[in-house]
Amino acid sequence: MEQIELSAGALPGSEKVYVKGTMFNIEVPMRKIITSDTIEVDGSRVVNEDVVVYDTSGPYTDSNYVVDIKKGLPKIRQEWIDERGDTIKLDSFSSEYGRMRQLDESLDDLRFEHVCTTPRVAKERCVTQLFYARQGVITPEMEYIAIRENQLVDQIKEKYKKEAGDPLGANIPSYITPEFVRDEVAAGRAIIPANINHPECEPMIIGRNFLIKINANIGNSPVTSSISEEVEKAVWAFRWGADTIMDLSTGANIHETREWIIRNSPVPMGTVPLYQTLEKVKGDVKMLNWEIFRDTLIEQAEQGVDYFTIHAGLRWAHVPLTVRRVTGIVSRGGSIMANWCTMHKQESFIYEHFNEICEIAAKYDVGISLGDGLRPGCIADANDRAQFEELKTLGELTEMAWKHDVQVIIEGPGHVPMHKIKENMDLQLKYCHEAPFYTLGPLVTDIAPGYDHITAAIGGAMIGWMGTSMLCYVTQKEHLGLPNKEDVKEGVITFKLAAHAADLAKGHPAAYFRDYAMSKARFEFRWKDQFHLALDSEKAIKFHDETLPDEGHKEAHFCSMCGEHFCSMRANKQIREKLAAEE
Amino acid sequence: MEQIELSAGALPGSEKVYVKGTMFNIEVPMRKIITSDTIEVDGSRVVNEDVVVYDTSGPYTDSNYVVDIKKGLPKIRQEWIDERGDTIKLDSFSSEYGRMRQLDESLDDLRFEHVCTTPRVAKERCVTQLFYARQGVITPEMEYIAIRENQLVDQIKEKYKKEAGDPLGANIPSYITPEFVRDEVAAGRAIIPANINHPECEPMIIGRNFLIKINANIGNSPVTSSISEEVEKAVWAFRWGADTIMDLSTGANIHETREWIIRNSPVPMGTVPLYQTLEKVKGDVKMLNWEIFRDTLIEQAEQGVDYFTIHAGLRWAHVPLTVRRVTGIVSRGGSIMANWCTMHKQESFIYEHFNEICEIAAKYDVGISLGDGLRPGCIADANDRAQFEELKTLGELTEMAWKHDVQVIIEGPGHVPMHKIKENMDLQLKYCHEAPFYTLGPLVTDIAPGYDHITAAIGGAMIGWMGTSMLCYVTQKEHLGLPNKEDVKEGVITFKLAAHAADLAKGHPAAYFRDYAMSKARFEFRWKDQFHLALDSEKAIKFHDETLPDEGHKEAHFCSMCGEHFCSMRANKQIREKLAAEE
Repeated sequence: MEQIELSAGALPGSEKVYVKGTMFNIEVPMRKIITSDTIEVDGSRVVNEDVVVYDTSGPYTDSNYVVDIKKGLPKIRQEWIDERGDTIKLDSFSSEYGRMRQLDESLDDLRFEHVCTTPRVAKERCVTQLFYARQGVITPEMEYIAIRENQLVDQIKEKYKKEAGDPLGANIPSYITPEFVRDEVAAGRAIIPANINHPECEPMIIGRNFLIKINANIGNSPVTSSISEEVEKAVWAFRWGADTIMDLSTGANIHETREWIIRNSPVPMGTVPLYQTLEKVKGDVKMLNWEIFRDTLIEQAEQGVDYFTIHAGLRWAHVPLTVRRVTGIVSRGGSIMANWCTMHKQESFIYEHFNEICEIAAKYDVGISLGDGLRPGCIADANDRAQFEELKTLGELTEMAWKHDVQVIIEGPGHVPMHKIKENMDLQLKYCHEAPFYTLGPLVTDIAPGYDHITAAIGGAMIGWMGTSMLCYVTQKEHLGLPNKEDVKEGVITFKLAAHAADLAKGHPAAYFRDYAMSKARFEFRWKDQFHLALDSEKAIKFHDETLPDEGHKEAHFCSMCGEHFCSMRANKQIREKLAAEE
Repeated sequence: MEQIELSAGALPGSEKVYVKGTMFNIEVPMRKIITSDTIEVDGSRVVNEDVVVYDTSGPYTDSNYVVDIKKGLPKIRQEWIDERGDTIKLDSFSSEYGRMRQLDESLDDLRFEHVCTTPRVAKERCVTQLFYARQGVITPEMEYIAIRENQLVDQIKEKYKKEAGDPLGANIPSYITPEFVRDEVAAGRAIIPANINHPECEPMIIGRNFLIKINANIGNSPVTSSISEEVEKAVWAFRWGADTIMDLSTGANIHETREWIIRNSPVPMGTVPLYQTLEKVKGDVKMLNWEIFRDTLIEQAEQGVDYFTIHAGLRWAHVPLTVRRVTGIVSRGGSIMANWCTMHKQESFIYEHFNEICEIAAKYDVGISLGDGLRPGCIADANDRAQFEELKTLGELTEMAWKHDVQVIIEGPGHVPMHKIKENMDLQLKYCHEAPFYTLGPLVTDIAPGYDHITAAIGGAMIGWMGTSMLCYVTQKEHLGLPNKEDVKEGVITFKLAAHAADLAKGHPAAYFRDYAMSKARFEFRWKDQFHLALDSEKAIKFHDETLPDEGHKEAHFCSMCGEHFCSMRANKQIREKLAAEE
């Protein structure tokens, strides 16, 4: 395998800090953005508070950490998993395919070096976070998440905290406790995707009463891309803020690519197991069956996949509902299953075996993300009967999964005009019993290919505010091609800002301070602080330097937009000085 | 002056069509996007309807038109203005400054060649579209606008029309008549910015019950840019969809730059006359006074500026309300006037002379855009007392302007978190008696410099749906530097998509068909149609060709995203064929 250079090193103007737990021996990483002093008119200095923010970038941005892609990330959860004593270590992979790949010597070069670590599985029926939450047990994962979500908000001075926002039915406490995390998981309102075979994962939570998360899709396709590109694309996505990644590979060596990514991923990874299943039958939909799908679930669960998209909600009877649609079924998984049902004149095997799927998920703590195979693919098809009939089925499946103590999230549309977004959120909450919603966009118009990260961010910010727990990013290449590294970054930042805008609107206590600090820095011409507080420091610096490249201009009390005479920030200073002098 | 190459030529896959009036001898230009046939499974062809869309690009995109920047655009309104018989042609410019620049031989090289055409002014008190509308008169401008807004929606087959959307209090008819246009103008709910000295302007309307418009700011600053760059930037902005432009120049030769742009502009131009006034006193705020401001208004009105941003709402008493703000006053005009009031300990001369400003505006039909000098510059300052006290004053000024039969729009924020947007719209409608709202963004978070076209498009789409009539674009350089040509395009397209998303949500009858046609083309793999129907055809083609550059792939029944086996569009065809065969 070719040499890989991963994006590593501290984020601009920042250092990694670790906050210790009180219940468990845990260390929660955060990013501290170091601010400079305010220089007053009389030349005196006033210290500004540093800004601590949520950090998805993993050890890669700890300047003391030595990256070794062949070793993989530290297994921070290993001890916690071991101490629970509810799992056993297997001698080999349980899936037929996993064993076959392991024995294939032609793959030795591709294989992750330390894959020799064999997988774990539940001793008994279930090892999920939901299982423990329901029993009143707070896990180390839960305390970790509570600390992480708070972003040290308790240390921010009172005057910098902002009032409540409008939570629209969400119930976000002013301070998140481990008990609150446990409560939300137990109620099914939040999930902690944390496969026992992904001990490298830094625990995170997906739920309406927490910070809104974003997912970045990566993955090779038959047309382009290689393993090395994909691993770096993943690390790159973590760096800029991806809370989870989904590996949607459909090309060659999916198994080995995935192994490399998981061993180097500090965030949960999701997959759509159906894609790989279809690869195994060489793309012949008719040949798909439960046995090979089941084997794929086990194969992936033992690699450490944290959540599966399962298109169990698309039933045979739904298919005719899509015939009059303008764009039919646009979900890849959905169209595969609809095609299968139509060919076999038979109910979906995924629907029929859903209980067994849950049994597998329970044994490894794989979350189930119920796929929306019938999501609308254009404005014309939004909120139609096909879509909402499937949503009702997803609600039924949610209850089934919960019976198995399996964690569930619900996938949502798609293309939806703004005035139809709320109905999606309302019905999802109703039909799916407040299980977390995980939406793609929604894209609020169809006519802007090349800008669909933006059409999707508009819908995403709105539905995020209304109650969606995680937004799947959309890149500017959507509908046109596969995203490259730059597109991935652009997509991640775009959804980060949409999620953050929604957190502000909902009144998440830890959301507001960064905006405040940015604005204060802006008013005081602290250019470098502005760059560092920006979601994308690199781009902010690049844009600034295009018109005012001199280093001295980063200290300048004006900028290129208005020049010196027209600088409103400067004028304010004069006004304040004058008014102060008069008092 | 250096040679200028303007962006001209037909838009991709499109031709210019002209729709004749029935009341007047007018020809309304539109863009017709030519679609290709659908090829059915059996090889037969089905003709798709071409898509006619609103077109801001002017004669530049008519392939029969020969561009001559030195001649300027055809004066399509000249005859209508002449026929009204309410104006006289002056022998020379009325403003002192205008005459001075005219006589300055050192400027000969810079001057627009045909500026020798002397200006017109009202014979009597008033020549505004509002004046005529109130008398029940339908002007050619009004019929032009009715035809333009409809986009030939009456010729679209019934099955391609979509239901109503959720207008949230707007009152959009299913077909726009000249009488409806007159009605809306008479009520003050819409304005037609159409200076009698800008006969090159293709009439357009700004109002809640019409298509949402977007404005692009251009203009040189003391730090960068030249005349030639600015003219091309304007033509470039029209090409991509700017409904109006504002010339915010603050550098050298503002007068001459403006002349060049207006003579070549098919869209209304707005300015902030205070900027040039400040240039005239060499940036010394204290030296500003009514006389020099008045002279500037007349100078610009006689050049053909269609609307003035007037910061009359910022009163002396408001200034102390901004002292505790995080970012004080961020409006350039606002901070200049606040500084002036504070220095002179005196009420704003703009406020005090507002009646005289209206008298000038009435004589040339310059619309007044009441500036929001106290708009919030950050999330922390949104919806504060300073902002809403000014808004109340803007409401009082609206009534004053209406007494003079002067057309008015109201400028709005700024930086506002999502949950505070609706209050802005509600109070604007209430305080300002339904005069059209013209907003900058609002930006829904402060932490994404480099992406503020997106933070602003999120707020823009939302407030557009809620009732804003025109969105001022924000470029990705906002807060960081001056936009270049590429940034202007990116900003225009971004706001075009936000405005369109809002039109869809409001249920504008002419908005839906393009989305429908795009989605149908997508489902049928008509790649070239998709490119042509896209807001930015160039970028769509570029992105597509990055992964599948072969010409043959534009006919391909799959794409790079999923490849052949995973193509859901392809799967749908199989499903439909199968279901059809069974029937």
